Amino acid sequence: MYLKPGVVEVRTIDYPALELRDGPGVAPGNAGRKCRHGVVLKVLASNICGSDQHMVRGRTTAPEGLVLGHEITGEVVERGPDVEFIEVGDVVSVPFNIACGRCRNCKERRTGICLNVNPVRPGGAYGYVDMGGWVGGQAEYVMAPYADFNLLRFPDREEAREKLLDLAMLSDIFPTGFHGARTAGVGPGSTVYVAGAGPVGLATAAAAQLLGAAVVIVGDLNADRLAQARGFGCETVDVGQGPVEDQIAQILGTPEVDAAVDAVGFEARGHGPDAAEEPATVLNSLMGITRAGGALGIPGLYVTEDPGSSDQDARTGTLKVRLGLGWAKSHRFTTGQCPVMRYHRELMEAILHERVHIAKAVGATVIGLEDAPRGYAEFDRGASRKYVLDPHGSLEGVRPV
Amino acid sequence: MYLKPGVVEVRTIDYPALELRDGPGVAPGNAGRKCRHGVVLKVLASNICGSDQHMVRGRTTAPEGLVLGHEITGEVVERGPDVEFIEVGDVVSVPFNIACGRCRNCKERRTGICLNVNPVRPGGAYGYVDMGGWVGGQAEYVMAPYADFNLLRFPDREEAREKLLDLAMLSDIFPTGFHGARTAGVGPGSTVYVAGAGPVGLATAAAAQLLGAAVVIVGDLNADRLAQARGFGCETVDVGQGPVEDQIAQILGTPEVDAAVDAVGFEARGHGPDAAEEPATVLNSLMGITRAGGALGIPGLYVTEDPGSSDQDARTGTLKVRLGLGWAKSHRFTTGQCPVMRYHRELMEAILHERVHIAKAVGATVIGLEDAPRGYAEFDRGASRKYVLDPHGSLEGVRPV
Amino acid sequence: MYLKPGVVEVRTIDYPALELRDGPGVAPGNAGRKCRHGVVLKVLASNICGSDQHMVRGRTTAPEGLVLGHEITGEVVERGPDVEFIEVGDVVSVPFNIACGRCRNCKERRTGICLNVNPVRPGGAYGYVDMGGWVGGQAEYVMAPYADFNLLRFPDREEAREKLLDLAMLSDIFPTGFHGARTAGVGPGSTVYVAGAGPVGLATAAAAQLLGAAVVIVGDLNADRLAQARGFGCETVDVGQGPVEDQIAQILGTPEVDAAVDAVGFEARGHGPDAAEEPATVLNSLMGITRAGGALGIPGLYVTEDPGSSDQDARTGTLKVRLGLGWAKSHRFTTGQCPVMRYHRELMEAILHERVHIAKAVGATVIGLEDAPRGYAEFDRGASRKYVLDPHGSLEGVRPV
Amino acid sequence: MYLKPGVVEVRTIDYPALELRDGPGVAPGNAGRKCRHGVVLKVLASNICGSDQHMVRGRTTAPEGLVLGHEITGEVVERGPDVEFIEVGDVVSVPFNIACGRCRNCKERRTGICLNVNPVRPGGAYGYVDMGGWVGGQAEYVMAPYADFNLLRFPDREEAREKLLDLAMLSDIFPTGFHGARTAGVGPGSTVYVAGAGPVGLATAAAAQLLGAAVVIVGDLNADRLAQARGFGCETVDVGQGPVEDQIAQILGTPEVDAAVDAVGFEARGHGPDAAEEPATVLNSLMGITRAGGALGIPGLYVTEDPGSSDQDARTGTLKVRLGLGWAKSHRFTTGQCPVMRYHRELMEAILHERVHIAKAVGATVIGLEDAPRGYAEFDRGASRKYVLDPHGSLEGVRPV
Repeated sequence: MYLKPGVVEVRTIDYPALELRDGPGVAPGNAGRKCRHGVVLKVLASNICGSDQHMVRGRTTAPEGLVLGHEITGEVVERGPDVEFIEVGDVVSVPFNIACGRCRNCKERRTGICLNVNPVRPGGAYGYVDMGGWVGGQAEYVMAPYADFNLLRFPDREEAREKLLDLAMLSDIFPTGFHGARTAGVGPGSTVYVAGAGPVGLATAAAAQLLGAAVVIVGDLNADRLAQARGFGCETVDVGQGPVEDQIAQILGTPEVDAAVDAVGFEARGHGPDAAEEPATVLNSLMGITRAGGALGIPGLYVTEDPGSSDQDARTGTLKVRLGLGWAKSHRFTTGQCPVMRYHRELMEAILHERVHIAKAVGATVIGLEDAPRGYAEFDRGASRKYVLDPHGSLEGVRPV
Repeated sequence: MYLKPGVVEVRTIDYPALELRDGPGVAPGNAGRKCRHGVVLKVLASNICGSDQHMVRGRTTAPEGLVLGHEITGEVVERGPDVEFIEVGDVVSVPFNIACGRCRNCKERRTGICLNVNPVRPGGAYGYVDMGGWVGGQAEYVMAPYADFNLLRFPDREEAREKLLDLAMLSDIFPTGFHGARTAGVGPGSTVYVAGAGPVGLATAAAAQLLGAAVVIVGDLNADRLAQARGFGCETVDVGQGPVEDQIAQILGTPEVDAAVDAVGFEARGHGPDAAEEPATVLNSLMGITRAGGALGIPGLYVTEDPGSSDQDARTGTLKVRLGLGWAKSHRFTTGQCPVMRYHRELMEAILHERVHIAKAVGATVIGLEDAPRGYAEFDRGASRKYVLDPHGSLEGVRPV
Repeated sequence: MYLKPGVVEVRTIDYPALELRDGPGVAPGNAGRKCRHGVVLKVLASNICGSDQHMVRGRTTAPEGLVLGHEITGEVVERGPDVEFIEVGDVVSVPFNIACGRCRNCKERRTGICLNVNPVRPGGAYGYVDMGGWVGGQAEYVMAPYADFNLLRFPDREEAREKLLDLAMLSDIFPTGFHGARTAGVGPGSTVYVAGAGPVGLATAAAAQLLGAAVVIVGDLNADRLAQARGFGCETVDVGQGPVEDQIAQILGTPEVDAAVDAVGFEARGHGPDAAEEPATVLNSLMGITRAGGALGIPGLYVTEDPGSSDQDARTGTLKVRLGLGWAKSHRFTTGQCPVMRYHRELMEAILHERVHIAKAVGATVIGLEDAPRGYAEFDRGASRKYVLDPHGSLEGVRPV
Repeated sequence: MYLKPGVVEVRTIDYPALELRDGPGVAPGNAGRKCRHGVVLKVLASNICGSDQHMVRGRTTAPEGLVLGHEITGEVVERGPDVEFIEVGDVVSVPFNIACGRCRNCKERRTGICLNVNPVRPGGAYGYVDMGGWVGGQAEYVMAPYADFNLLRFPDREEAREKLLDLAMLSDIFPTGFHGARTAGVGPGSTVYVAGAGPVGLATAAAAQLLGAAVVIVGDLNADRLAQARGFGCETVDVGQGPVEDQIAQILGTPEVDAAVDAVGFEARGHGPDAAEEPATVLNSLMGITRAGGALGIPGLYVTEDPGSSDQDARTGTLKVRLGLGWAKSHRFTTGQCPVMRYHRELMEAILHERVHIAKAVGATVIGLEDAPRGYAEFDRGASRKYVLDPHGSLEGVRPV
């Protein structure tokens, strides 16, 4: 639970009802909303995400008492009367975007901007500021609304248990990386540059490989994270060691790639030990190294309000973008939350048939729910790990695929 | 011919050879380039374009003596020995992008960023700064390279003559508007907002109608241009009369559209009589009025260097973009020159079968070559017209379709 | 209500419950299915469809007592407890495909082959053989399941009433024609041939125009229907008057079109007064007249069982297709029911903004429910009309847009 | 060189000129055609293809004396005066489709149906009946027209030599398999069935893996070929051992796949020792095992004339297709020659970066040009090998990647 900038605590909360009760961050129009279409899940895995970090660092308007956690894998223990196809006992992945399945956007597969789950703006999520106030899943139990529509059932309970650490990446990070790669135009034979070797960047790299990329280059300042990327066949660039384009040229023989993904977002910094934040630095760099006609996938988060920024413009999400360069190169840019449902079933198949090793790629590391504060702290210090909270010991003995 | 900021003159130049001879603006690697694959055209129509204006206003690094003109329609009078399929006597439309038809980008239909026609950067054009130095077509004759690949032959000479004023829009403006509309996601039933009612904006509006848009709204400050837009069934917004979203809401019942096109580009201004340039103002406004999940087509020109700008950042093409807002709405952005060849054949069919009335829509107005300076001046003052130079009197008596 | 081959009668049936009760044609697994997610509609318009004709002619295994009617427009008079967003009083279009909104196919926008509404095979529909047994809407009231997902609400009740005759085409025929055109690759500037000038063919032609086609050619044997097609700007071919390719060549100057649509289906006949059925004749003809690289949209119905056919192979839906020809021309073929939901919202916008005149195009003709048998008979004799049943007099005074 | 049904011989032919001289199979309009845009290649590798087999078996109208060979990899030894970008010494892959790069189809990336290289019908190829008469490449030297457009240059000569056996698959079989997989809709997580474990089937399987398929199942009667498929991670089905759907169900737990590819074509047979040809049997089987909403890629050859067939209909390429079944399942079908140029650059990158092992997958086996007749014979008897002719000993010591 988020308390205030820098402080996360484990606290006892109520067992969830099939209703969104009023509480910290609940949008006014959402308080008291009945969820006959919802289920209660026993949380089997609940990951810490980089976007949780944004909140914990105080870079958002997240309220005190917000239960965090939007990367949830669980077992159904109770279901509402309007649930028809999901059953008690099912082991499921929960997309971090909450979607009604009944609005125009959901019908068009844009579940990241559902019109019916958040009175404030399109798009809802668990445990997240401004996303409707749905209670997060870094907890023992959690309620998931519109269960028939949202949840992805694993075909076999036993198999799901054995591969749970990998399957736990389906709620957000793996589809998010995949979305970044795909919207950047990655396909068989592509050369790809991924900015950022945190978990999303590593997931993007693994996704690019699954899409058939010829070469995947990952750039970061953090040596451990770069080593992690090399561990599954990526090339790497230490962005602190000279111009990125020169390092790319050494790898590829040309300073440009076909496709680039921004897996950093608005907390980007310049290089060097005392570098200040430069929120557009990654984007501008990517335009430089992406070939004319290429595309940029931008799964890295950019916000509309950044009260913690030192820069006046950045506080309203306004960045100094070198658009003229992108225009001259006919670049395409795709932004926004990943609509998880567009990809998760296919990625589940790839995991179950061991065509991809996503838990290994991102350094999935299991900790107990009570260790969440430690996980947040280590992750904040740059540990090359993806922390997976295990409230019920469900991941004991589970190995990556 | 461009002489210096604000000055255009008509001068006598050489009859073109099948070679790109050295001259003002010719890229070093291009001087002396043989064009056995080229043809010489008698220019039947050569339009003045808004991007010519950028050069004439001194907002680029265009050199003195540059022969302008990249919107060319002509009749083949001579052909090189490597030309097999285009024949003398053919009446043709010349895409403003010069493309080799043999590089990776051309093979991928990205003829706006051909790798072989401009040693300086991907992409070539006639009569245009930094685009390889190919001699422009606001002249009596012009040489067109890679003729078999580039030129679009009209199927019937007589019919072509009768519909020449409309067909003259195929070299740039109509495909450019179409590209803007299509990359913004316009399709049957869409609601569309077009920023800018200059010729590109009006062509975008006509293209959106051809694509089946339900409602096309055009915004500008210029009353004449807005009247022109209403003349072919568009709704209009006077952006000087209050917030655009409010005016859209009055038309549609909702303040957002499905798709938006920036037909203004980097010389955008704020509103009001003494408004300064605000190069990102159009883009930022479009993010506000485009629904979550929508897309922005950006055919309006953004440059890498703008020596005439008053703003330090803008001089290098860097703009203050409210990216956080676009990200929250999952917007897609497509920039760059239109690859004319991707669309011109289909649009020619639409003109020949009178499914679209593009000359009328953009206010095509024929003037003699000797009147070019006047055309530039009137256009610069905001005339709601698309000036078509007619060096040989070919357009006498020709009416819009 | 269908009684036996050739016999349709009007009978009194029960007011619908929010449940699929056992009855003629109800799939065993579906009998007694609760529909808390459903609504009851007062039927404002219910059209007779060519595929109803297939059943009435005894060309299917439809059971006696089947309530026909899958093209329904209605007003919500009662709603189940799981319905959240559709409200009593809403005027809505009902897609003929019944879809759950919760299965893989529905999530992928393939609502024509929903996995949860028909135990027998993928795909459900109202009043239709083998489609789950859902009760049809050629009645005063009808129940529509999964209402939040399936129904398209018209934004304004009054406007909906005024344009009801056109809006009534959104439940099947207009999206079906649009699907045919789109899957045939129709876009701006296309040349298109539509085989069949019945209502689906005419709707296809209107859709092709909306998509920007340069020329739409409709072929049939029925002079009235061809006159109807000419009435909204189509070219026509009387397929009894010599080879289709020759007639196309006279119109276009070339014997091939870019795109072709089969709006006839399995009851196709050869030409001439005593022509026998030749179920593949349309398809084979279309391969002949579609250019290499073109595509065929096949919304015309082909069935897996045709007990009424004189041909042994045809009884199991096996046809003599000239596949070698299609292969040599690299054709693509798209078959199957139209997934109405993929298109109906956009097409509604086109109707409401009067960008298309679909009721006029298809010859929409209002008759009372009691006149249904007459409508079936006239339609069967080739009347160039689309019969719209009006059980409550809702269409009195309503004119086409 | 093809002499008569069943007979292939090695004969001395002229060193090629930059001209298509009259000869066996040369289309009248093509004889004497100048090729200033062509190059002469020293043939480094020239594969035997299954479609060569069709000709050698006498199943086509191929004339006596036809020089076979359309899968060519070579080194440029001479170039015509209109070649600008390909240079003497370049090592290149030659797409089997000959394309002008200047017609509508080539500009739309449909190089398999070029309008300018074959007066008889759209589409040209080397050494192939009815494809314009261009001289084949199972020879020491061969002329390749429109070289700048057609040829794919390998970036590094040395590297190309080392990986030549894999790169030799880029001229036809690997792109053809890839086209089959892609047009069947294969992507990350797909389940795929490939009918036929000959070289095209195996290449399809390898391509499906590169595209991220979760499970690739290959079906055939030939045990050696099935073993070959298992050798690189495919599942297999012996189609002689009971219904395919049952065997698929054993592998996947469901009798249907997402995507299916027909890598057999018109010489398909029924099962059993004395099975007769049943040209539609594969297609009809694939409709049965492809899920509703899935697609079929059909790279397997179907011909317009099959004089060797025992079936009257089949002689004109007419097959008994169970279209009703496909229609009920909303299948899409894509037929035709693969447009190699759409894929070969990307697949080259995948080979060079060792992301795929295509030579191993298809069992590439090097033999001398003089051994061609033996290669044809063994291949005809079902050897699980892809024979690569090596006229100059260029492949000595070359190993698969």
